[in-house]
Amino acid sequence: MRREIDKGLEHAAGNGILSRRVFLEGALLAGAAAGSGVTSAAAEPLPVPGWMKQPGAALSAYGQPSRFEAKVVRNVPPPPNPATQGIGTARTPLHLLNGMITPTGLHFDRSHSGTPDIDPDQHWLLIHGLVKRPLVFTLEALSRYPMTSRIAFVECAGNSGALNASQAAPLDVQAIHGLLSCSEWTGVRLSTLLDEAGVEPAAKWVVAEGADAAAMSRSVPLAKCVDDALVCLYQNGERVRPSNGYPIRLLLPGFEGNMNVKWLRRLKLSREPQMAKDETSKYTILLQDGKAWQFVFPIEVKSIITHPSPGLALKGQGFYEIAGLAWSGNGRIRQVEVSADGGASWAQAALQEPVLPKALTRFRAAWEWNGGPAVLQSRATDETGMVQPSRAQFVAARGLRGLYHYNAVASWRINEKGEASNALA
Amino acid sequence: MRREIDKGLEHAAGNGILSRRVFLEGALLAGAAAGSGVTSAAAEPLPVPGWMKQPGAALSAYGQPSRFEAKVVRNVPPPPNPATQGIGTARTPLHLLNGMITPTGLHFDRSHSGTPDIDPDQHWLLIHGLVKRPLVFTLEALSRYPMTSRIAFVECAGNSGALNASQAAPLDVQAIHGLLSCSEWTGVRLSTLLDEAGVEPAAKWVVAEGADAAAMSRSVPLAKCVDDALVCLYQNGERVRPSNGYPIRLLLPGFEGNMNVKWLRRLKLSREPQMAKDETSKYTILLQDGKAWQFVFPIEVKSIITHPSPGLALKGQGFYEIAGLAWSGNGRIRQVEVSADGGASWAQAALQEPVLPKALTRFRAAWEWNGGPAVLQSRATDETGMVQPSRAQFVAARGLRGLYHYNAVASWRINEKGEASNALA
Repeated sequence: MRREIDKGLEHAAGNGILSRRVFLEGALLAGAAAGSGVTSAAAEPLPVPGWMKQPGAALSAYGQPSRFEAKVVRNVPPPPNPATQGIGTARTPLHLLNGMITPTGLHFDRSHSGTPDIDPDQHWLLIHGLVKRPLVFTLEALSRYPMTSRIAFVECAGNSGALNASQAAPLDVQAIHGLLSCSEWTGVRLSTLLDEAGVEPAAKWVVAEGADAAAMSRSVPLAKCVDDALVCLYQNGERVRPSNGYPIRLLLPGFEGNMNVKWLRRLKLSREPQMAKDETSKYTILLQDGKAWQFVFPIEVKSIITHPSPGLALKGQGFYEIAGLAWSGNGRIRQVEVSADGGASWAQAALQEPVLPKALTRFRAAWEWNGGPAVLQSRATDETGMVQPSRAQFVAARGLRGLYHYNAVASWRINEKGEASNALA
Repeated sequence: MRREIDKGLEHAAGNGILSRRVFLEGALLAGAAAGSGVTSAAAEPLPVPGWMKQPGAALSAYGQPSRFEAKVVRNVPPPPNPATQGIGTARTPLHLLNGMITPTGLHFDRSHSGTPDIDPDQHWLLIHGLVKRPLVFTLEALSRYPMTSRIAFVECAGNSGALNASQAAPLDVQAIHGLLSCSEWTGVRLSTLLDEAGVEPAAKWVVAEGADAAAMSRSVPLAKCVDDALVCLYQNGERVRPSNGYPIRLLLPGFEGNMNVKWLRRLKLSREPQMAKDETSKYTILLQDGKAWQFVFPIEVKSIITHPSPGLALKGQGFYEIAGLAWSGNGRIRQVEVSADGGASWAQAALQEPVLPKALTRFRAAWEWNGGPAVLQSRATDETGMVQPSRAQFVAARGLRGLYHYNAVASWRINEKGEASNALA
């Protein structure tokens, strides 16, 4: 093990945060930090493993992950009773992933009455209400329209809500932040279909309804539907999967996840919102005084550190990559700052290109851990100038009662053993 | 069915190709073409399907495609004998996909001795030969290095080779062009690891060896390894899958697929190439006169139309989207032109943003099919100014003997029934 750190490396903030030039210039400075993780050896040949001594497995029609990655799965809590096993959340293991795209099989799932088994030949999309020409689309009809693709995140409004508490629960990235995923979505612009139907001037809202047993419904401002909404048929190249809305999902880029209605079957144009269950009893923002904000749609600017994080212990002093994700429902991420001293000092992280609007952006920073305690934080700023609030600012404004739209700076405490834990710093 | 076409739509080339403004301006012109695919109806409520009358399926740890998409699979030919069932190709069904990202389970697979079942704790990467410090990396050691992500295509050098024939075989997109896929790859820059090892001045080549039973090996110019090669641990967010090189794949963006060595176990720096089996008896370009080009690495500029294509018959006259993929091993795609009259006239297609270097770029064009015969073609130009050759130009230069690096303009013939077939136009 080579453990020496090149003292010539540029430090950019306290407690070991190095310059992001480590990433932006494409390589470490010569002979520098990374060696701490390397086992060096003489040039002897490697032993020939058993799997090189016999032919490997047959070609397969649809590939799956290695059996050695069986732990990389969505977190499905045991249901309170068997009748409700389709209701709840399956969270993405973001701490075990890297890059910007979420593997489709690991995209988070929040369902209100389980995943319906929809026959696409028996599924239609109805556009009606305040339109000149009510229309019904088959899947085949939708497939003839001009398509567009975009990489976009979807985040449940309740994601990270566990941090809005008075004490830090012993939770990891997946349990706290796992209601967040990012895919390439492909479909027909909703504006194209609305043009076809002819929107009446009185229409201001569009009620979107899913074909699950909950008939999960949300009211969407017409302006959003015309702006950048997509009627999605494809996710990461293939047809949208059942737990994400097969065969049709509404994508409202940057809006809270619940509004991106899965199993979309109906869009009704109306003067007023529907006041559906999920926009009255749920998905409203409860304030200190017992009042609540309703119809707060865009996800606020936010970031999380995925590496290191609880369960991924540091193995000795030296160089580590601090990696994480930043996103905003308002557009592109402009910058992400990281701190290793609980916010006393900050340095800019490197942003992985391409930085796309309303998509996850991977950030990376170089950190030389000296073996002492540390508190790791990240703070994102989006292109509109919005900055993540500190936890203190967030609690002062919103109190400790609200579950939804929590976007304060999050913290991982690192102890002298290199273990990370949730902290409310 | 509404079938009328708005005659005010701007035609951009012969035989019904419409202006790409249909895509670039975000919507169809008011009341325009798309209606041909729509079933319109009165505003009556849709029938309530069975799957809305009972709770849906339980949350799952790892999602899979709908059972109604069981036909969307890689094309695995029956092996000549059971002992060689891991040798050959599994092709991506590009005609059934959309967007830029290939679903990981459908990424094409070309294997030379099957897929090894590698235990990542017993797999190491050795860097040796002409280096100052031979190094062995465990997976955990590699995971501590600075990572980078990029979206990149991988294409087998033999892809589309079936078109280099004197007669058009009755094949579809998958059979002809399915050795092509695109993923977000994440890993450590090879340059970082080479800096750590210390490259000797005499080194000019790097021999990359895989841990399959074929010990599949290729020689890579050192300059490429230093430029943009990645030692990949992740593909589309999760660990690289077994059929794509688990736990480590070498990515050489833009170079022929075979060089992107799967199950990477060894990189040996040397003065000369190794002259391995796959760079002498295979993956060389046979010319008319019996001589062959060796060490032709970058994939040339190329494009294919995926929709419409064989098996996806047109259903009546009217509006269709012509969609396809363009790519170049030299960098970004600058433009794609499409033709519906066998190359007599051309119009620019819309390119889906982001257009990334050495990645697939989705192009789309609007087409008003008049019910008559048509020959659909696409022609890509990359940012270096390279243009796809016509088939005649390609054959004049290379003859009909070579299997590899076929990149001529490809053609689908559409008959009056709306059926598409492979054509050598």
